[in-house]
Amino acid sequence: MISDATPPTDGYVPPAVDVPALTALLDGEYGEIRDLVRANLSTHASVLEEAEELGIDAFRERVRELAVELAATGQTGMGFPKEYGGGGDVGASIAAFETLAYGDLSLLVKVGVQFGLFGGAILHLGTERHHRAHLPDLITGKLMGCFAMTETGHGSNVQALGTVATYDTARQEFVITTHGDAARKDYIGNAARHAELAVVFAQLEVDGKKEGVHAFVVPIRVDGRPAPGVRIEDAGRKMGLNGVDNGRLWFDGVRVPREALLNRFADVTPDGVYQSPIENPGRRFFTMLGTLVQGRVSVGGGAINAAKVALTIATKYAVRRRQFEAAADGEEQLLLDYGMHQRRLLPLLARTYALHFAQDVVRTQLHEVFSGNRSADQGDDEQVRRELESRAAGTKALGTWHATRTIQECREACGGAGYLAVNRFAALKADSDVFTTFEGDNHVLLQLVAKGLLTNYANEFEDLDQLGMVRFVTGQAVETVIEKTSVHKLLERVRDLLPGGDEGDPEVGLLNSDYQLAMVRFREEHMLASLARRLKRGMDEQRDPGAVFSHVQDHVIAVAHAHVERLILEAFIDKLRTLPDDGDEGSNGGDGNKSALGLLCDLFALSAIESDRAWFMEHGRLTVQRSKAISREINSLCRRVRPLAVDLVDAWGIPPEMLRSPDLVD
Amino acid sequence: MISDATPPTDGYVPPAVDVPALTALLDGEYGEIRDLVRANLSTHASVLEEAEELGIDAFRERVRELAVELAATGQTGMGFPKEYGGGGDVGASIAAFETLAYGDLSLLVKVGVQFGLFGGAILHLGTERHHRAHLPDLITGKLMGCFAMTETGHGSNVQALGTVATYDTARQEFVITTHGDAARKDYIGNAARHAELAVVFAQLEVDGKKEGVHAFVVPIRVDGRPAPGVRIEDAGRKMGLNGVDNGRLWFDGVRVPREALLNRFADVTPDGVYQSPIENPGRRFFTMLGTLVQGRVSVGGGAINAAKVALTIATKYAVRRRQFEAAADGEEQLLLDYGMHQRRLLPLLARTYALHFAQDVVRTQLHEVFSGNRSADQGDDEQVRRELESRAAGTKALGTWHATRTIQECREACGGAGYLAVNRFAALKADSDVFTTFEGDNHVLLQLVAKGLLTNYANEFEDLDQLGMVRFVTGQAVETVIEKTSVHKLLERVRDLLPGGDEGDPEVGLLNSDYQLAMVRFREEHMLASLARRLKRGMDEQRDPGAVFSHVQDHVIAVAHAHVERLILEAFIDKLRTLPDDGDEGSNGGDGNKSALGLLCDLFALSAIESDRAWFMEHGRLTVQRSKAISREINSLCRRVRPLAVDLVDAWGIPPEMLRSPDLVD
Repeated sequence: MISDATPPTDGYVPPAVDVPALTALLDGEYGEIRDLVRANLSTHASVLEEAEELGIDAFRERVRELAVELAATGQTGMGFPKEYGGGGDVGASIAAFETLAYGDLSLLVKVGVQFGLFGGAILHLGTERHHRAHLPDLITGKLMGCFAMTETGHGSNVQALGTVATYDTARQEFVITTHGDAARKDYIGNAARHAELAVVFAQLEVDGKKEGVHAFVVPIRVDGRPAPGVRIEDAGRKMGLNGVDNGRLWFDGVRVPREALLNRFADVTPDGVYQSPIENPGRRFFTMLGTLVQGRVSVGGGAINAAKVALTIATKYAVRRRQFEAAADGEEQLLLDYGMHQRRLLPLLARTYALHFAQDVVRTQLHEVFSGNRSADQGDDEQVRRELESRAAGTKALGTWHATRTIQECREACGGAGYLAVNRFAALKADSDVFTTFEGDNHVLLQLVAKGLLTNYANEFEDLDQLGMVRFVTGQAVETVIEKTSVHKLLERVRDLLPGGDEGDPEVGLLNSDYQLAMVRFREEHMLASLARRLKRGMDEQRDPGAVFSHVQDHVIAVAHAHVERLILEAFIDKLRTLPDDGDEGSNGGDGNKSALGLLCDLFALSAIESDRAWFMEHGRLTVQRSKAISREINSLCRRVRPLAVDLVDAWGIPPEMLRSPDLVD
Repeated sequence: MISDATPPTDGYVPPAVDVPALTALLDGEYGEIRDLVRANLSTHASVLEEAEELGIDAFRERVRELAVELAATGQTGMGFPKEYGGGGDVGASIAAFETLAYGDLSLLVKVGVQFGLFGGAILHLGTERHHRAHLPDLITGKLMGCFAMTETGHGSNVQALGTVATYDTARQEFVITTHGDAARKDYIGNAARHAELAVVFAQLEVDGKKEGVHAFVVPIRVDGRPAPGVRIEDAGRKMGLNGVDNGRLWFDGVRVPREALLNRFADVTPDGVYQSPIENPGRRFFTMLGTLVQGRVSVGGGAINAAKVALTIATKYAVRRRQFEAAADGEEQLLLDYGMHQRRLLPLLARTYALHFAQDVVRTQLHEVFSGNRSADQGDDEQVRRELESRAAGTKALGTWHATRTIQECREACGGAGYLAVNRFAALKADSDVFTTFEGDNHVLLQLVAKGLLTNYANEFEDLDQLGMVRFVTGQAVETVIEKTSVHKLLERVRDLLPGGDEGDPEVGLLNSDYQLAMVRFREEHMLASLARRLKRGMDEQRDPGAVFSHVQDHVIAVAHAHVERLILEAFIDKLRTLPDDGDEGSNGGDGNKSALGLLCDLFALSAIESDRAWFMEHGRLTVQRSKAISREINSLCRRVRPLAVDLVDAWGIPPEMLRSPDLVD
């Protein structure tokens, strides 16, 4: 089905997209759970209006009620072991979460808080006693809980939390205390209203010795009232996500039994001896944190799907809305037939597809690491886990920024209509805004990604000890870093891919995915080597490590960005290579689907190179002629994708009720 | 007063900013009215909470009430003639509006709708009979009205409106009718609830002849009920600005007397003869529209000031919030001491200053054109008016995009705290979002700007007849356009400004404002000549003008952007050149103010060049070495501006109550 195509020029015949086959391809192995979520979204579609119409209190109750109803269908418990009533499939739990992002995002985040953060902490940090006590009821939503990590004074730097848990050997209890307002737990989802239990992260002190941050199960509410010693404050109205009851918590000598410590990675014996199979305290803490990586994978995937909703509305509007005569026949021209409008929407569409496949990769890796053996103990392959953590962080950062940018562009592309709440952008924009911040601030996450690259994942992932990192990097011979990155070989490789060398026809080879890959790989590795040199130089000049880091911080972010973008492009190209050619047996009926995806992959790759073309020119990897040729090729690709645009958004399979926008998409 | 400075490095001593003197400089000749508005903002500061706490209905009433209270202080009527109760000072009315943008933006837009759009239409399109009848009551806010131009089917292309006004000679009345839902008036502020009168734009038909779009005063509500024949619908909840009652209007044969035509530029005699001093119908219409330019100047200025609120909060937070140890002393580092954080906020701060001075220029031009002789008749200097319209459109477009971007960056820079409504970003973001769309969609406005450049303002400003434009441009010898732009001479000029030519020390001359100006001028003129050539080539190849336009549309937008950015840089540099050197007599006590502004101007100029450095390299105006040197210089400028940052935001004089953010700025 070809939607409102512009008259083909240059004899171009657009590939015929088989929408159901493309949906099946995108849904992958999780078609069943995604369809369950789609059905649930349609059943409860009224929540989109309720988000606007109900007051905060009523809407919070409604969202809680819906979370419990979803739980009854099994969609929210996929990540828990079957013996406790879960689905026993980590990958499916992420896929379900991603799909839920087509709908109201308060409901999404409520589900994330309850089943991902709270449930995930019980599951991954606790042991059988905690599982038996809490999993059955939290999976059904009967028991609501919260994840009390962030404090007012400490968000990203979790190691510096101020809440303290002191072991009282005489009574075999921990005593939990908030020291000062900077140490109050803040922004905690589920805390203001619904949570009975909290997983509280606090500095453990045993026998006067500080053992670092550990997690405790703490009752914070009994019969709807704050538990003794617990003070709860509502965090109040937020930009969006007002169906989630975020709150603040203070603990004034709150006592919990010794068994309240989530003791998978450390324990305290009744007589007050601290024990852990992981000797290094930092490593222990970051191993705990690492088990929570699913939160980042979830948020990244949710953000990418929120972007799909925005793009679907804007694309459908752009093939419906006409403005200004542009041809001599007197009829006004469709928005999507304007070159600029194509430029605004279609590279974002291509990038959304690219991120979708990158999300597939990180979800699959998560599933593999966490399935069967859900242990994160030493026996595990640490390198694999750290690379997963890095990929999760990077995909989350680029995915959430992409969502913010895409939703904004789509709103503007729908003009004044985009400003009306009924047309979805109001909620999409307000609700998704904090995705760039929660589950790890994007800038901090990218610094962690860069740290992993610089140190070859030698350190714990979450440990952003800048001084240590600077010293570590400069302590190695910089040549080691550079050699590992094999910049020189890559440089040759890129040149080899240009027929006739740099001086040849600037348009030759642009659509060769080996060329595209070589470019983004070169960028990443050149940036990495250059960053290592800068760090080394700074230290050689005897400057303070903090100042050295601050001076190169823009390079740190840039190298991480380049790394993640390389992973995204690889994911897209790898996916394409697994597909049978159009028309071949096994092409799943999609006669033009591979060709259509090929166009999108080229559009994504060249757009990514174009937006950083200054860097490529500065580093001798792009001639002026070729840089201009890339921009021309992108315009040409936009014209080729344009007739497929509606099919490409339809293939995401967003339930029509989720789009609302009665005047925009019908 | 130097705020939390980093230890100076390299012996740099930051200039001492005299905040009150800088505020006086920024307020300029409108200090008095701005202070009145500041006082009113403080008096009614509770509106910021009311925007969250009241339901839509109650908040709309509250906003109306406040608009009337502001009117009583004189702040909203500055643009009206004194004889009707106004202040007789157009420039002051814009300055008052700009300052009001420090507060709740629903109130700002309500004021804009009532006094700017509705009042402005009566004033500029009507004649004495309309002035006498309506101005006194509308200036006090006793008479509320709306500006009913946009229709569901037509926003930017106003000439294609579908509402029709037919003259009935027998009864000497106009009969106004909405033909189909695409012709309903939509998004009309004040229509859903408060307006008694509407200025309705409709296609005038007299004696079977279509005379184009004209404006009529139509009663739409009597005693709170829709007038006979008028249907009113609430446009419903919006992303923001929910204190403004936007609505839809349908007219079913609504009769108004002959005198209801706003007849400054055209009239119909009692016996049905159409008359106008402006013969060309297109020209007549665009002359009418041109009188409404103040709306764009207002929105652009409002957006720039909304960005100031966001930057003030984020800057103050960044000198208060610490995160991660970066020095060996164990204390965590202030956010604003991180290089990346400086990079995120300080170029936006510099650009905000630049836009402030650009807004001064457009406001002053508006004041000059509209003062004394408020006529827009033929006698006027049309070129001057069209250049004003172009500058207003361009400043509006870049100012509003800057606000969207800045508010977003500042929200993210405040982390999770930025997401709480009490910290202001929720309202700032939601309310200002539509600024990029209303009073002219930014992309459409930039196309108009480009059209003016291409045609040397030979056509009416608003007339975006793409076919006509393409033909006009290609009808001239392209050489004429190119010669006019004197690209070759400019090229030489840039080269002359580089000591030692392109091959010399790449860092020399970067802080020379002649160099910076030459760069942005070269870019604009090169782009313009290149665009003209592309258009010509397309037509020579016998392609459809619409297709030609669509293919070059990204160049059209780019040239307009380059043009406006050049105007902004010129405004900043011109302003600096008028200031006495620091320490000289007349430097207004600001011993370091000129130096501080000089740093900001350099930071703005180099950031603008940096973000388009790929283009400069592609066009031989920037060597790789010099491009890298610019990025280094920007980092260095950020470090130099950093100690001044708090003073620079304080100088905007935002009443502290407008910042709210109790945990962020104290």
